Amino acid sequence: IGTGPGAPRWRLPESIDWLRQASDWVGYRLYLQLLEDLHQHQLLHKFAMGKETERVIHALELAAEGKNVALICSGDPGIYALATLVFEVMDRENRADWCRVEVRVSPGITAMQAAAAKIGAPLGHDFCAISLSDLMTPREVILKRIEAAAETDLVIAFYNPVSPKRTELLEKARECLLKFRDPTTPVVLARNLGRHEETIRIVDLKDLSHEEIDMLTLVIVGSSETMRYGDPGQSCRLFTPRGYAEKLRNHDLKEGTG
Amino acid sequence: IGTGPGAPRWRLPESIDWLRQASDWVGYRLYLQLLEDLHQHQLLHKFAMGKETERVIHALELAAEGKNVALICSGDPGIYALATLVFEVMDRENRADWCRVEVRVSPGITAMQAAAAKIGAPLGHDFCAISLSDLMTPREVILKRIEAAAETDLVIAFYNPVSPKRTELLEKARECLLKFRDPTTPVVLARNLGRHEETIRIVDLKDLSHEEIDMLTLVIVGSSETMRYGDPGQSCRLFTPRGYAEKLRNHDLKEGTG
Repeated sequence: IGTGPGAPRWRLPESIDWLRQASDWVGYRLYLQLLEDLHQHQLLHKFAMGKETERVIHALELAAEGKNVALICSGDPGIYALATLVFEVMDRENRADWCRVEVRVSPGITAMQAAAAKIGAPLGHDFCAISLSDLMTPREVILKRIEAAAETDLVIAFYNPVSPKRTELLEKARECLLKFRDPTTPVVLARNLGRHEETIRIVDLKDLSHEEIDMLTLVIVGSSETMRYGDPGQSCRLFTPRGYAEKLRNHDLKEGTG
Repeated sequence: IGTGPGAPRWRLPESIDWLRQASDWVGYRLYLQLLEDLHQHQLLHKFAMGKETERVIHALELAAEGKNVALICSGDPGIYALATLVFEVMDRENRADWCRVEVRVSPGITAMQAAAAKIGAPLGHDFCAISLSDLMTPREVILKRIEAAAETDLVIAFYNPVSPKRTELLEKARECLLKFRDPTTPVVLARNLGRHEETIRIVDLKDLSHEEIDMLTLVIVGSSETMRYGDPGQSCRLFTPRGYAEKLRNHDLKEGTG
């Protein structure tokens, strides 16, 4: 189950139903805290950050005992979260008692959607999501993906843009993007979305620096088509046209108003 | 405002609030119908399919008169939907009365998330969304994006995979993908998600054909890493590992159980 970015206004009715029906909640301590207002009789199984496999195994053990278990992620459980790990662990272990467990996934609003909605509509045309975490993916694969996305003008959402030990991949991404995109291409830095500490702002691609970014930040890099709307500052918005402009002009022309 | 794929269980509390607060609902006839259970006093402005620009202009005119207007899309308004067109039209027309309108975007579950959740977790690692509609994007741009995504092993969600007049782009996409991926790579065909007529199934990449696909279908092509879980047929699931497998094995090795 995904809780979305954190705020109750972005939780799905389906997720709320499943959480209520569950007898046990399993998840990272902070994500369970974000659901405090929904908590009733459920047993809480709180985990430290990073113990993803342990969380999944614990949830499967409980489910195999006949419990109705909610395994809780932030965002969308299907996007850089635990849903895939559940299937992976079940597939690998091939345990008869786990195979009988019925697994259902409830989607959720993922960080790039929340950031996009807040700042306008930067994901209005073709886009990709790339994680800069090299813990699980070889660095060459990540860099190849960035280059391909840069070259083919996709809007790019970078998940896990930095970690305390890893800042240079973001710098490499900027250098690569600057080969194909204008230095003033807008970049969204969104932090703590849906929480009280939420901040969101737009910088130029040339100024994208790891110093202003931490693990709680999502980065969206505009395509060559992405435009600013409104005055620079708080109220500035971004949008990536679908190409309607041309259609609209043609339409106006036909109607004789263009 | 996005309604999600159609079912009430996937509507956000924020969207519901905004719909209730609005005095006017503007949207494609069918999307307004999907919200019948929420309808109270609001004036309905129903549009035919395809009149996107007219819908946006109508919504802006009402808002400029001081109305609280809900412009309604399916899925996520920020992903292949109307949010970006609102900013585009405002930017192009630069009308003083429209500039004063406050535009807010509420996100929603988009088709690829709903399909992914139903079938497991195929979007568990880097992915992209590409629209095959060539009404607004040159065909060469689309094909270049497909090739780049195929070559760099991204999971791909194809929106607007076919239209009555356009079926060959999907065939070209298959041919391109087969240059880089195994013929048995799993492909998800999801139709009418969240509605009574919902169907979802898995085919091999080599068997992907426009004959089984219509405008209401979303297509997700797995990466080389995407795996099937369970028996072929109704209960088969897909997942794209984040690379945890290796981490897990290392962990087990360290613990002496591997």
